Amino acid sequence: MRSTIYRIIEPSKKKNGASHYFDIFIIILILLNVLAIILESEESLRTIYRPVFRQFEIFSVIVFSIEYLLRVWTATEKVKYSRPIIGRLRFMTTPIALIDLFAILPFYLPFIGIDLRFLRIMRLFRVFRILKMARYSKAFDLIQKVLKEKKEELVITLGLISIILVIISTLMYYVERDAQPEHFSSISKSIWWGIVTLTTVGYGDIYPITRLGKFLGGIITLMSVGLIALPSGIIASGYTEQILERKRKRN
Amino acid sequence: MRSTIYRIIEPSKKKNGASHYFDIFIIILILLNVLAIILESEESLRTIYRPVFRQFEIFSVIVFSIEYLLRVWTATEKVKYSRPIIGRLRFMTTPIALIDLFAILPFYLPFIGIDLRFLRIMRLFRVFRILKMARYSKAFDLIQKVLKEKKEELVITLGLISIILVIISTLMYYVERDAQPEHFSSISKSIWWGIVTLTTVGYGDIYPITRLGKFLGGIITLMSVGLIALPSGIIASGYTEQILERKRKRN
Amino acid sequence: MRSTIYRIIEPSKKKNGASHYFDIFIIILILLNVLAIILESEESLRTIYRPVFRQFEIFSVIVFSIEYLLRVWTATEKVKYSRPIIGRLRFMTTPIALIDLFAILPFYLPFIGIDLRFLRIMRLFRVFRILKMARYSKAFDLIQKVLKEKKEELVITLGLISIILVIISTLMYYVERDAQPEHFSSISKSIWWGIVTLTTVGYGDIYPITRLGKFLGGIITLMSVGLIALPSGIIASGYTEQILERKRKRN
Amino acid sequence: MRSTIYRIIEPSKKKNGASHYFDIFIIILILLNVLAIILESEESLRTIYRPVFRQFEIFSVIVFSIEYLLRVWTATEKVKYSRPIIGRLRFMTTPIALIDLFAILPFYLPFIGIDLRFLRIMRLFRVFRILKMARYSKAFDLIQKVLKEKKEELVITLGLISIILVIISTLMYYVERDAQPEHFSSISKSIWWGIVTLTTVGYGDIYPITRLGKFLGGIITLMSVGLIALPSGIIASGYTEQILERKRKRN
Repeated sequence: MRSTIYRIIEPSKKKNGASHYFDIFIIILILLNVLAIILESEESLRTIYRPVFRQFEIFSVIVFSIEYLLRVWTATEKVKYSRPIIGRLRFMTTPIALIDLFAILPFYLPFIGIDLRFLRIMRLFRVFRILKMARYSKAFDLIQKVLKEKKEELVITLGLISIILVIISTLMYYVERDAQPEHFSSISKSIWWGIVTLTTVGYGDIYPITRLGKFLGGIITLMSVGLIALPSGIIASGYTEQILERKRKRN
Repeated sequence: MRSTIYRIIEPSKKKNGASHYFDIFIIILILLNVLAIILESEESLRTIYRPVFRQFEIFSVIVFSIEYLLRVWTATEKVKYSRPIIGRLRFMTTPIALIDLFAILPFYLPFIGIDLRFLRIMRLFRVFRILKMARYSKAFDLIQKVLKEKKEELVITLGLISIILVIISTLMYYVERDAQPEHFSSISKSIWWGIVTLTTVGYGDIYPITRLGKFLGGIITLMSVGLIALPSGIIASGYTEQILERKRKRN
Repeated sequence: MRSTIYRIIEPSKKKNGASHYFDIFIIILILLNVLAIILESEESLRTIYRPVFRQFEIFSVIVFSIEYLLRVWTATEKVKYSRPIIGRLRFMTTPIALIDLFAILPFYLPFIGIDLRFLRIMRLFRVFRILKMARYSKAFDLIQKVLKEKKEELVITLGLISIILVIISTLMYYVERDAQPEHFSSISKSIWWGIVTLTTVGYGDIYPITRLGKFLGGIITLMSVGLIALPSGIIASGYTEQILERKRKRN
Repeated sequence: MRSTIYRIIEPSKKKNGASHYFDIFIIILILLNVLAIILESEESLRTIYRPVFRQFEIFSVIVFSIEYLLRVWTATEKVKYSRPIIGRLRFMTTPIALIDLFAILPFYLPFIGIDLRFLRIMRLFRVFRILKMARYSKAFDLIQKVLKEKKEELVITLGLISIILVIISTLMYYVERDAQPEHFSSISKSIWWGIVTLTTVGYGDIYPITRLGKFLGGIITLMSVGLIALPSGIIASGYTEQILERKRKRN
C-alpha cells in the first residue's frame, strides 16, 4: 500500500492515471494559494471575504499536511532514504521537504502560543514544486542544462559586474556627494544608483547632476551596454552548444 | 468566375497582375484606416475634419464589406471549405474571418439600435492581415519558424519569470508596505513594481525606499540581468539552429 | 597630376604615405568640427570664444571646400565618373558628395543673401566619412555584412514591433484616457508611452495608473521581453553564420 | 629563500599549500577593505567606529606594504625582471604594481606633509587583483579570450553608437531647446539625454516634450533596439566561435 501511495504522490511521467491527476490537483491548489495570498493583501477584499480566505486556508493546510505526512511516510520507498527513522529524518531535512514543512507550520504554531504568521510567505515557495513537476519537460531540462553548464561563466560575469559596480559607485560618491548630499550620502546609496543604472532600470530617483558626474555616468552607462550583453551572449552560446551536441549524438 | 475572383482576392505570390494590385490596395486601405483611427483621436483634428473621417470610414467599410462577402462566397474554392453552407460557416468562424467581420460590424449595428462603436478597435487588428500577405517573404517565414520551434522554451522562461516575479513582489510587499503604504498597499501593486523592474523599464513611479528594500531590490535587479538574457539567448540559438539546418539540407 | 591628387585624397589602405596622413588630417578636422559644434552650443563658451569658433569655422570650411573641389575635379579618375561633365555631375549627386557640399554651403550662402545656418548641422554628418575611411577594417566590414544580410529580418522585426505597438497603444488609450486625460489625450500620445515602454527606456513621464491599465501594461511589458530579444538573436545568428561561412571557405 | 617566498606570494594553481592560503588571506583582506570603505562612508558608522576603522586600516596597510615589498624583492625571480635594479624598477612600473603602490601610499604621505587621502580610492582597485588570482579559472579565461578576440568589433560598435549619439543629440538640441531651455540648453546636455535613452536607462530627468521631439525621439528609440543588440550579438557569436574552435581541436 505504501508503495502505491508513493507512486501516486510522486510527480508522474504519464499523461493519465491517479498520479497524473494528483499532480494536477496539487498544482492547482498551490496556484490558488498563491492567488489567495495576492488577493488577501487587498484591504477591501480582506475585509469582506475574511471567512472565505480562512476556510480556504484551513482546507489547503489540511491537504498539504496530509500530503506532507504521506511524503515522509513513503520516503523510505526511495533507496537513499530506505532506513525507517534516519532515512525519514534525512528526507525531512532536504530543501524541498523543509519548504513543504514551513508552508504548513505557521498555521499550527499559534495553537501552541507561537505566532509566526510571517512565515506564511513560505507557502509561496511551493510554486517551485510546479517546476519540479515539469522537470520531465524537454524544454525545461534544456534551460536547466544550459544554466548549469554556464554557471561558472555566469557567476564570474556577476563577479565582474559587482567589482565594476563597487568601483564606479565609489567614484560617483566622491563626485556627487557635495552636490547632492541627500542622495549620495554614502557609498551604499551610490551602489543603489550603480545597480539601477548598470541594469538599465533607471527609476530616476537618483542620478548624477554635476557636469563631472554626468560625464562619468555617461561613459559608464555606454560601457555597461557591453557588460550587460555578456550574460545574454553566454546563454545564447550555451544553447547553441547544446544543440550542436544533440546533433552530434544523433549522427 | 468565382474561381477568378478567388484568385484575385487571395494573397498572391506574383509581383504583378490583378491579385497583386488588389493586395497592395487592401494593405494601403488598412494602413490608412489605422492612420485615421490615430488621427481621429486628436481632439483638434476630430472637430475640424469630422465629415472627412466619416466619409473615409463609409468608403472603407463598403470596400471591406464587399471584400468580406466575396471571401465568404469564394471560400468554397478551398478544399476544406468546399461544402456550400457548412463550409462557408466554418470559414466564417476562422479567427481571420471573425476579425474581418468585427472590423465592419460596428458600422452597421447602430442602424439596428445596438451601439458597439467600442468594437471599432477591431479594425486595428486587420493590420495582421498585412503579415498574412507578407507570409511568402522568406525572412518572415524564418522568424515564425524560430518562434514556433522555441515556443516551449519561451513559455517556460515566461513561467519561470512569473514565478520569480510573484515571490520577489510578495517579499517586497512585506518589506516596503510600512514605509510606503500608498505605493505597496497590496501584493498586486508590488507585482507592478516587480514587472517594471524585472523588464528594466523602470518608470520610477514605485521603487523601494527602505534600506532592506533597496538591498533586496538591488540583488533581484542584478539577478534579473541573467533572467532577461534567457529569451534573447533562446532566440539567438533558434536562429543559429535554423541556419545550420538549411546548410545541412543544401549539402 | 590629377591622378596623384586623386590617390592622396582617396581613403588609403596603406598605413603610411601622403594619402594616409591626409586621411588622418581630415578625420581630426571633422572630429574637431564636431567638438566645436558641441562646445559652441554652451552659452558661456560661445560668448567668450566667439572669434576663435569663427576663425576655426573659416579655416575648416576653406579646407573642406578645397577638398570638395579636388574630389569633384579628380572624380573622373574613377571609371564610372570618367566622362568630364556628366561624370562629375553624377559624382556630385552621390549622397556622400551631397553631404560634403551641404557641410560647406551654409557658410557661403549668407554672402549671397540666403541664410541657411540651420544647415550647419550637415557638417555633423561628415563624421560618417570616418566610417568610410575605416571601411577597410575587417571588423567594420563584418558588422556591415551582418546587418546587410539580416536587413530583411530586422526590417520585418521592426514592422512586427510597430504593428504590436500601434495595437497596444490604442488599447491603452481607451483604457487610460478617462483617468489621465492630460497624458493619454490621443493615440499618438499613447504611442509615445508604447515606444518608451516596449524599448524599456521608461522615462516615467507617462504610465498607466488604472488597475486595468496596469494589468494590460504589465502583460504587454512581460511579452515585450521576447519581442526586444528578436533583433539581438537575429544579429547573433548573423555573426555566427558569417563565422561558419569563413571557416568553410578556409577548409 | 627568496624563491620560496616568491612561490608563496604568487597566485597558485594548487588548491592547497601555503601559497593557496596566502591567496585566500589576501583576497579576504581586500574584500574587507572594500567593505570598510563602503561602511566608513556612512555618517553614523564613521562617528561611532572611527577607531576600529583606523586600526583596521593600519593593519591592512602594514600587510599590504609587506606584501608589496616582498613582491618587489622577489620580482627578480621572473625572467623578464631578473636584473637586480632595472628589473625591479620595471616591475614597479607595471600597472598592477602601481595600483598596489597607490593603495598604500596615501597612508604614508600625510607623515611627510602631503595629504592625498583622496587616493585612498586606489585601494578599491586592488579588487582587480582577485580577478588576477582567478585567472586560472577556465571560465574567466574564456570571457577574456572572447572579449579580446571581439575587441575590434566592440570598439567599432562603440564608435558607431557614439557617432549616432552625437548626431541625434544635436538634432534633439535644435528641436527641444526653445521648449525646454533649462534641460536642452547645450548639446552636451542633449548628449546626456541621448546616452540615457540609447542605453534604455531612462532616468526621466530629461526627455522630449514637443510633438516633433517625441516623434524624432520615438523613431530613434525604436532604432536603438537594433543598435544595442549589436554587442550582445557580437559576444554571443564570439562564444560560439570559441566553442566550435575547442570542438575542432578535440577532434
